[in-house]
Amino acid sequence: MAHIDLGLDETLFPGINGPLRYRPETGKPLLELAEVLLRGPHPLTAGERELIAAYVSGLNECTFCCSSHSAFAAAQLPEGMPLVDQVRADLDTAPVSPKLRALLRIAGAVRDDGRKVTADLVDAARAEGATDLEVHDTVLIAAAFCMYNRYVDGLATLAPGDPARYEQAAQRIMTEGYHS
Amino acid sequence: MAHIDLGLDETLFPGINGPLRYRPETGKPLLELAEVLLRGPHPLTAGERELIAAYVSGLNECTFCCSSHSAFAAAQLPEGMPLVDQVRADLDTAPVSPKLRALLRIAGAVRDDGRKVTADLVDAARAEGATDLEVHDTVLIAAAFCMYNRYVDGLATLAPGDPARYEQAAQRIMTEGYHS
Repeated sequence: MAHIDLGLDETLFPGINGPLRYRPETGKPLLELAEVLLRGPHPLTAGERELIAAYVSGLNECTFCCSSHSAFAAAQLPEGMPLVDQVRADLDTAPVSPKLRALLRIAGAVRDDGRKVTADLVDAARAEGATDLEVHDTVLIAAAFCMYNRYVDGLATLAPGDPARYEQAAQRIMTEGYHS
Repeated sequence: MAHIDLGLDETLFPGINGPLRYRPETGKPLLELAEVLLRGPHPLTAGERELIAAYVSGLNECTFCCSSHSAFAAAQLPEGMPLVDQVRADLDTAPVSPKLRALLRIAGAVRDDGRKVTADLVDAARAEGATDLEVHDTVLIAAAFCMYNRYVDGLATLAPGDPARYEQAAQRIMTEGYHS
């Protein structure tokens, strides 16, 4: 049970869904940020951006966010959940493009501490073809999930154990997007 | 110099101001979130909420955000910068209300890891009169600054050394708010 009374049935609105509805004034910009970062027009596919979100949420050990964005990535990547699992298990050997691997390394550094993003990490991504926009958005996706993860876990919200719940949510996100 | 070309003079637009202008699509929800959390109608004063932002940014050692929100808190708290300095130096002995101290302890836990927010920390805040909304917003302010701090430092933006720059920004925030 969450630390505060969210005024709803958490089994119907698990994870971040409860707090987003509890406080719609903050829910609106939180959803708008996710929509632009993860689903707006972009050189990285939605699946690749969801993979960055899943990777960071996994490092932060946020069960709800990691399960959610892993499912959202899997549903939008041709390689599906096996690739998500490989990236989360061992980024160095996972079969992603050199550019995406370099961006995921930047995301991992951001997750740890913004100051860990070195010029070398950025140069390595650029050498693999990453643009300024891709570096910017990778940093902000990683930073944003350091917020979403803490929001979800700091309020002790419910994380369903059934994978089907996250797969259903993936279908909803792919058709409706991040809207309240 | 920032890791990416922000397309502007960083001495004129230091810290988060450069990235907010570089990518207005994400800048809009980022500013809207700050406006609601730090300046919207609330049982906590704007000064108290800025103090939470300054405290978390200090723990994250984000020079730009900590200098900014310390100045914003100081300008809006009757006790000014001495209180901000005391809270940052030793929360246990700083002369804040028991409720604000309990909320700052929650913020410190969120900063470390959302899962560190225990029922005991929340109960302690509630025993001092904190409402569900105050607990919610404290968690989200702390989580949001874990994002803003990483965004600012992950892109290696400029942090001016002159305190007058942050005092000027405080006057602007107090009259114009967090708008692009």
